[in-house]
Amino acid sequence: MVLFKPKDPQFRSRVEASFNRQQVMKTLGVKIVKLQPGEIELMMDYAPAYTQQHGFIHAGLITTALDSACGYAAFSLMPDDAEVLTVEFKTNLLAPARGEHFIFRGRVVKPGRTITVCEARAFAVEESQEKLVAMMSGTLMAILDRDAECPRHC
Amino acid sequence: MVLFKPKDPQFRSRVEASFNRQQVMKTLGVKIVKLQPGEIELMMDYAPAYTQQHGFIHAGLITTALDSACGYAAFSLMPDDAEVLTVEFKTNLLAPARGEHFIFRGRVVKPGRTITVCEARAFAVEESQEKLVAMMSGTLMAILDRDAECPRHC
Amino acid sequence: MVLFKPKDPQFRSRVEASFNRQQVMKTLGVKIVKLQPGEIELMMDYAPAYTQQHGFIHAGLITTALDSACGYAAFSLMPDDAEVLTVEFKTNLLAPARGEHFIFRGRVVKPGRTITVCEARAFAVEESQEKLVAMMSGTLMAILDRDAECPRHC
Amino acid sequence: MVLFKPKDPQFRSRVEASFNRQQVMKTLGVKIVKLQPGEIELMMDYAPAYTQQHGFIHAGLITTALDSACGYAAFSLMPDDAEVLTVEFKTNLLAPARGEHFIFRGRVVKPGRTITVCEARAFAVEESQEKLVAMMSGTLMAILDRDAECPRHC
Repeated sequence: MVLFKPKDPQFRSRVEASFNRQQVMKTLGVKIVKLQPGEIELMMDYAPAYTQQHGFIHAGLITTALDSACGYAAFSLMPDDAEVLTVEFKTNLLAPARGEHFIFRGRVVKPGRTITVCEARAFAVEESQEKLVAMMSGTLMAILDRDAECPRHC
Repeated sequence: MVLFKPKDPQFRSRVEASFNRQQVMKTLGVKIVKLQPGEIELMMDYAPAYTQQHGFIHAGLITTALDSACGYAAFSLMPDDAEVLTVEFKTNLLAPARGEHFIFRGRVVKPGRTITVCEARAFAVEESQEKLVAMMSGTLMAILDRDAECPRHC
Repeated sequence: MVLFKPKDPQFRSRVEASFNRQQVMKTLGVKIVKLQPGEIELMMDYAPAYTQQHGFIHAGLITTALDSACGYAAFSLMPDDAEVLTVEFKTNLLAPARGEHFIFRGRVVKPGRTITVCEARAFAVEESQEKLVAMMSGTLMAILDRDAECPRHC
Repeated sequence: MVLFKPKDPQFRSRVEASFNRQQVMKTLGVKIVKLQPGEIELMMDYAPAYTQQHGFIHAGLITTALDSACGYAAFSLMPDDAEVLTVEFKTNLLAPARGEHFIFRGRVVKPGRTITVCEARAFAVEESQEKLVAMMSGTLMAILDRDAECPRHC
């Protein structure tokens, strides 16, 4: 496991503040469980409102939490004047998202000044047993203050 | 544009019935606007509950609708005893998902007995102007009745 | 079809010069057939040296040509002091790459100052019939002169 | 690390025989270094013939070896009457592929009767130092003898 040194010693409060501004995390009940430089763990309860036709959590909602896991793992290593945007992600669905709650673990694979690459995994938890249900690889981009007049890679 | 011949003449009611069982589509207010064999258009209104930290719709929610667009485009060409599962998808985010509502157009690129490949695009609509905000390519899998004892590719 | 206006009126010679520096294109016998701003078509002959275990062209070689198609479609719209790098791509394989020769069509979906998103398709040609065998979506990045001391997104 | 039990005790000779039928592996000089159930390591020397415009190995060639790593990791767990096909892969390029030789490590994340999901990483080696240059996630499909009349997911 690579350990990362954050550029911003206040990365923790910066990540939490941004995460709390994501209305969708509140709506879905996603919470930060652990946070280290370049690494994050999120949790979400099962909710019938977010299921697909077989009663499992829809792949898009699993992806929503995985994307936030990648995004905030990346954001934790960015300088304090940076915003983070997702460039792309891919999700492989490995098993039905059936469980009492779900754990999402995201981590930085390769940090960069502009581009950061992350991966994340989603686990369904039933009777305290974790089962891998999905995995993501994603590209995140830092937008710096000096680019503020030009959001989203113009 | 390739035109497809559906294996199940009742594909329309089958797609609608399955779509209506996706609780998440109701929760997010996603509706079917158009449906042809191998092609579908969905619509979703803006809702603050599903936004990320800048007030735009979270990429994961855009992905949720894109995945359903791919899934039901594929499902429309499957035989009447098939279920559809998503194997994987990739989303490229092209612009912030800022708009009054959103249109999602999915279509089959390559149908198959087991594997179907689709693509979909998401458009934000503001003042009747469409803007491309995301695109997806995805792999869908048909699970047939005879595989029923063995869901999700065992 | 969106039409693009190139920033560099000499884009054609710039693309060709860079393409000609790709040794691998010469090795594989890949040639530029058409070039427009934001669009390119490449061609490659079948060669047993690049086949997989069933005698078809290996997916990685199809991907090599698709990546160059995406890269040079993107590069054609970049300013004259830019270099282009691939950030990521995904290939969906749709049919065996069996043919006398192969056509690769790449085009820009969304150009940007830093990030450009492209898509490309590969067709096998047999007895003058084109068959779609693979499709790619990819993210390309412009590296500008002023970043020269800092290659590949640091 | 998950350990896998192969369905075919002769998996080793089966993988090697199939690998040896891939002409492209011979052409590129790719060799199997290690092979365990669900895991493989390949090696490739640097060759100017496969470089892009900056003199590094082209991303498509790195992808070629990564795809074979994923494919044979998956194939090692398949029954003895199965063929393996790639459904899709995504490659994230993390650093220029500059090195004396390259190592590719692929492993199965989730095996399945029909669908197997793998991941692989590419490392450039210079002065005995490994550097991560690319990563892949991919979907592989088993084609069984009983499907022989219907190759590639029909």
